Amino acid sequence: MWSRCLGALRAHEHRYLLTTPAFAQTVRFSSGTTTTMGAIGTRTVDTTERLAKLRELLKKPENNVKAFVVPSEDQHFSEYPAHSDERRGFISGFNGSAGCAIITLRDAYLFTDGRYFLQASQQLDSNWKLMKQGLPEVPTWQDFLSKHLEQGTRIGIDPTLISAVDAESLKESLEPRGSELVSLQQNPVDVVWGKDRPTRPQNSVFPLDVKYAAGETSQSKLKRLREEITKKNAVASVVTLLDEVAWLFNLRGTDIDFNPVFFAYAVVTPTEALLFINGAQLQDSVKTFLGSDVEIRSYESFLPSLKQLTTSLGASKEKPMLLGDKTSLAVVEAIGQDNASLVPSPVAAMKAIKNETEIEGFRQCHIRDGAALTRYFAWLEEQLNSGVELNESQAADKLEEFRSELQLFRGLSFTTISSTGPNAAIIHYSPERDNCAIIKKDQVYLCDSGGQYLDGTTDVTRTLHFGTPTEEEKRAFTRVLQGHISIDTAVFPTGTSGYIIDSFARRALWQEGWVVVTMMLDCRHGTGHGVGHFLNVHEGPHGIGTRIAYNSTSLKAGMTVSNEPGYYSDGCYGIRIESIVIVREAKTPNNFGNGYLCFERVTMCPIQTKMIDFSVLTAQEREWLNAYHAETLEKVGPLLRNDPRALQWLERECSPV
Amino acid sequence: MWSRCLGALRAHEHRYLLTTPAFAQTVRFSSGTTTTMGAIGTRTVDTTERLAKLRELLKKPENNVKAFVVPSEDQHFSEYPAHSDERRGFISGFNGSAGCAIITLRDAYLFTDGRYFLQASQQLDSNWKLMKQGLPEVPTWQDFLSKHLEQGTRIGIDPTLISAVDAESLKESLEPRGSELVSLQQNPVDVVWGKDRPTRPQNSVFPLDVKYAAGETSQSKLKRLREEITKKNAVASVVTLLDEVAWLFNLRGTDIDFNPVFFAYAVVTPTEALLFINGAQLQDSVKTFLGSDVEIRSYESFLPSLKQLTTSLGASKEKPMLLGDKTSLAVVEAIGQDNASLVPSPVAAMKAIKNETEIEGFRQCHIRDGAALTRYFAWLEEQLNSGVELNESQAADKLEEFRSELQLFRGLSFTTISSTGPNAAIIHYSPERDNCAIIKKDQVYLCDSGGQYLDGTTDVTRTLHFGTPTEEEKRAFTRVLQGHISIDTAVFPTGTSGYIIDSFARRALWQEGWVVVTMMLDCRHGTGHGVGHFLNVHEGPHGIGTRIAYNSTSLKAGMTVSNEPGYYSDGCYGIRIESIVIVREAKTPNNFGNGYLCFERVTMCPIQTKMIDFSVLTAQEREWLNAYHAETLEKVGPLLRNDPRALQWLERECSPV
Repeated sequence: MWSRCLGALRAHEHRYLLTTPAFAQTVRFSSGTTTTMGAIGTRTVDTTERLAKLRELLKKPENNVKAFVVPSEDQHFSEYPAHSDERRGFISGFNGSAGCAIITLRDAYLFTDGRYFLQASQQLDSNWKLMKQGLPEVPTWQDFLSKHLEQGTRIGIDPTLISAVDAESLKESLEPRGSELVSLQQNPVDVVWGKDRPTRPQNSVFPLDVKYAAGETSQSKLKRLREEITKKNAVASVVTLLDEVAWLFNLRGTDIDFNPVFFAYAVVTPTEALLFINGAQLQDSVKTFLGSDVEIRSYESFLPSLKQLTTSLGASKEKPMLLGDKTSLAVVEAIGQDNASLVPSPVAAMKAIKNETEIEGFRQCHIRDGAALTRYFAWLEEQLNSGVELNESQAADKLEEFRSELQLFRGLSFTTISSTGPNAAIIHYSPERDNCAIIKKDQVYLCDSGGQYLDGTTDVTRTLHFGTPTEEEKRAFTRVLQGHISIDTAVFPTGTSGYIIDSFARRALWQEGWVVVTMMLDCRHGTGHGVGHFLNVHEGPHGIGTRIAYNSTSLKAGMTVSNEPGYYSDGCYGIRIESIVIVREAKTPNNFGNGYLCFERVTMCPIQTKMIDFSVLTAQEREWLNAYHAETLEKVGPLLRNDPRALQWLERECSPV
Repeated sequence: MWSRCLGALRAHEHRYLLTTPAFAQTVRFSSGTTTTMGAIGTRTVDTTERLAKLRELLKKPENNVKAFVVPSEDQHFSEYPAHSDERRGFISGFNGSAGCAIITLRDAYLFTDGRYFLQASQQLDSNWKLMKQGLPEVPTWQDFLSKHLEQGTRIGIDPTLISAVDAESLKESLEPRGSELVSLQQNPVDVVWGKDRPTRPQNSVFPLDVKYAAGETSQSKLKRLREEITKKNAVASVVTLLDEVAWLFNLRGTDIDFNPVFFAYAVVTPTEALLFINGAQLQDSVKTFLGSDVEIRSYESFLPSLKQLTTSLGASKEKPMLLGDKTSLAVVEAIGQDNASLVPSPVAAMKAIKNETEIEGFRQCHIRDGAALTRYFAWLEEQLNSGVELNESQAADKLEEFRSELQLFRGLSFTTISSTGPNAAIIHYSPERDNCAIIKKDQVYLCDSGGQYLDGTTDVTRTLHFGTPTEEEKRAFTRVLQGHISIDTAVFPTGTSGYIIDSFARRALWQEGWVVVTMMLDCRHGTGHGVGHFLNVHEGPHGIGTRIAYNSTSLKAGMTVSNEPGYYSDGCYGIRIESIVIVREAKTPNNFGNGYLCFERVTMCPIQTKMIDFSVLTAQEREWLNAYHAETLEKVGPLLRNDPRALQWLERECSPV
């Protein structure tokens, strides 16, 4: 599942059940229990009073701004914010995942992209002007601030909700017009929201077993981070992203949808490790697990503590505090720009490289996950053959049910994309529970789904046809499969980035005149993203794709990455074949240079051979397919002893071609 | 032939014979007639007196510098400078193609790279310290100036011999030490050289037939350039590279080795076209060809004219003069930095895209060129089979003889790389006439060569074995061939750069653990360079390779590019398979996006099937090879009616496999 255009991922939401810190099977809330926030619904909200109150606050002397920006981000730049952080949704009434609100003393503007034009136009009341970003002559919200607002405007922002990097470029663009970005001390939207604002999730945190899951103690991780601090001639490392804090301390939580993380910050110095978290989230056993070397401070004390630490550590331009490049403006302001060094996060770089325990966990959870998928596809085929009417969402629920029966399952890793026919062409489609399509036997069905397990995270896409595919569908499927195989079998020298090998995934599609691009937003779909270990299903810093940033990070042994080329025919069908692979050292006949890398595939789920146009498949690709299916049958088959239907389906789908 | 590491290309030199402006066969000087410059030989020269005189000049009040930099470049940044521009060779006695001399009031340093350590150590006298760039702890000449010279040093340079871009970065690096780069009004090396300095070649210039060769009138080219000037809101375009001037005016010359160009500059404004050239190089008929719209001024008046034009055209920051990014510091100083805009050269961008006449010329000259190569390889095989002892240089002479019998031939496009066994692993090897290896029947033989023809320029590499190749040699050859085929058959969307598709050339080699890299200098070999039309064999701005600059220019229909993957086993053998291809619009089954491109191959010369390890070749690759050989036989065969040996060889080499 690809992260580039976030969007519809949050249509359904669920929470991890707080679990005891053990390798035991637990039940969890079903994904249907969406908490409806007090003020945010799917219908129009009257925002007149909210806006009036907000404008009063903007005019107050301590603020004195003529415009206020409300972005979608939370203070950790999470892919899925908690309801308490859905400020833009509260103030505008529009609750899609992407958008930015700008409120001036007279007007209110909501900027969003093509995926949300319809929803926003339905949800916004008459106080708002919808700014359809992407259409010609509609500025981005940044351009709007710098080019359309009056000269010399003081523009307010909550500095915890904008990255220092983005704030810097915004400030530069405002300068020529004499306008100014002003950090407000208190977010006026929060004041207006008042007691109706949901409380921040503060669920108990649990430790990850070192021997069976994490593979490395927190002490060892801290030691390695300290070596980085010393190497970079810094005084401390400030960790603000939730998955980075979770990884560093071998803790997991249930505060955020799909991502097993908890609200916290951390600061690591050569001698100290400070964890900023609501103390109530830490049971005594967890404190014991952390040990006396980790000092617990309150979540709220993070920014004041940073200021004080900057002084006590003597941070300076020569000996700075290390900040990841996604750190907020508020953090940089607390430290002082001269004392901060914004760098690619050292924690992200360490986290991306999985140790052997994590890798074995990835292998194992993917085999179990493959069993659930097999049971699902076998069941779905039977249902459709029996003429049972099933909509996309009902089908997705069945898949979740099969996954929930698996050992070590802790929830989904994202909302299941269960899509029939034309819906499969919408890359980030996910079915609405009460308003989605019936799965048709004579259409392509694309299913992109994944689970969180104590031993790893999965993300797999298979595209199937339960009737008779057209020649074009088969040709497209085969070209996508060739790209998938080309990535899977690639061998490349140490130092090669995912930017360089991306063309392997596209070559076969290009031969047909097919580019991997959604028309909507011209948002090019990447070929692969990093995957966390029982953490966020999307993680960096590496990836395979056309984003030039991927050229800055080489692929390294131990990294996980998805291999998911696809082709999307707007209004007709979509094809994607996605497996997770792990970067490994390659045993090449020669070893010229500094070593070679290859991929080990861990996803075990058949690729439908009925969809293949064998006239374009090479003999080598056919061999690859047969070997993959033999491996899948061997590994997944034994888990299907109690489901003869699934075993039979697996055996049929894995037959050599 | 690849341009990255220039080096040994100039070991033999030859001059184009001045030809009449017609499509007639002419004789030319043989490549053996190397003009030996007065002061530069292959033995050690005593530089004591030269250095003493130079230092006196440096101390003079009008100079007052403590160091002087003598780079290898000429004022046009030509790949091959004329003897009159070999200032570094004169002052140091070292005449390899790459190097930079720095003379202080006390010491003299010669910086060069690994290819020239031996030659430089033999040629430099005791006045000189050889700085072996690339070895640990040896600084680059730029670092030497900024880090090793005394603080506050005034460093002299001839501003016509350093690009404005390089000068800028050098100045920045000198700043922290208070040192300064000083542009001298007169090059003191030229003063010391005095009357011994060879005169600049000033051979007659001839026009290129529009209908049969250029395909577009100079008037039309000027019109398109003027549109660029207007589009960029500029007042003029200053053209300083010799091949750009030659292309713009449809003129060719013989002033420079291998490149059919002449010494000139040009300035184009919306209403004027000024050509700065020695009037004696222009016969009346050429002046007529140019027409009254082109104003001729003397070559020497270029810089003073620029100054005056800047004023008369009212150049400013808002309405600047356009300069290509390889323009000299002297030009920028004449115009004034604020009035200059350094951009990717618009002339280079236009020149890179060949029109249909040029493309047809490329096809035709490559067929003729293929006939010469076929005759050569057939002859060489017979010689070796008969036990005739031939050295690499003697063989290359025979190839030149065959080429010289071809219609429209005007000289070689670079020194032939004729290399046996281990010499083939030295990418830029070219045999020394009196000191080169005997071609051995039981070694790999690599031949990289090309010709200049009135209708195009060729550059082709074939690797052959006249005995029995080893399994490893065959495997390496096959992997290189697979990369070659992968580029040749690539289809890619409009907007794709040569940086993106470069991995296609490397994928098969990577599978073996082979990177395409020479150990020497860690100079990575690119996959492809642009090729001029009866112009320089290396031209930009595009290319296929790992240089990130190639990611800035997309491949466009009409561009020529070499397809030359290779593998080099140091001390053993080298493999390269090079053909020229032309970027064309692709007819794909679908046409998603903005169109697709592919390559049309124009080089017609067999690829030795004896060298192929068929166990790794796919069925599709075998088909490609058979189709290529059928096409080659069909096109080249008819030209070999008078050489039965060659025709027989061609038929055998083109037999289907």
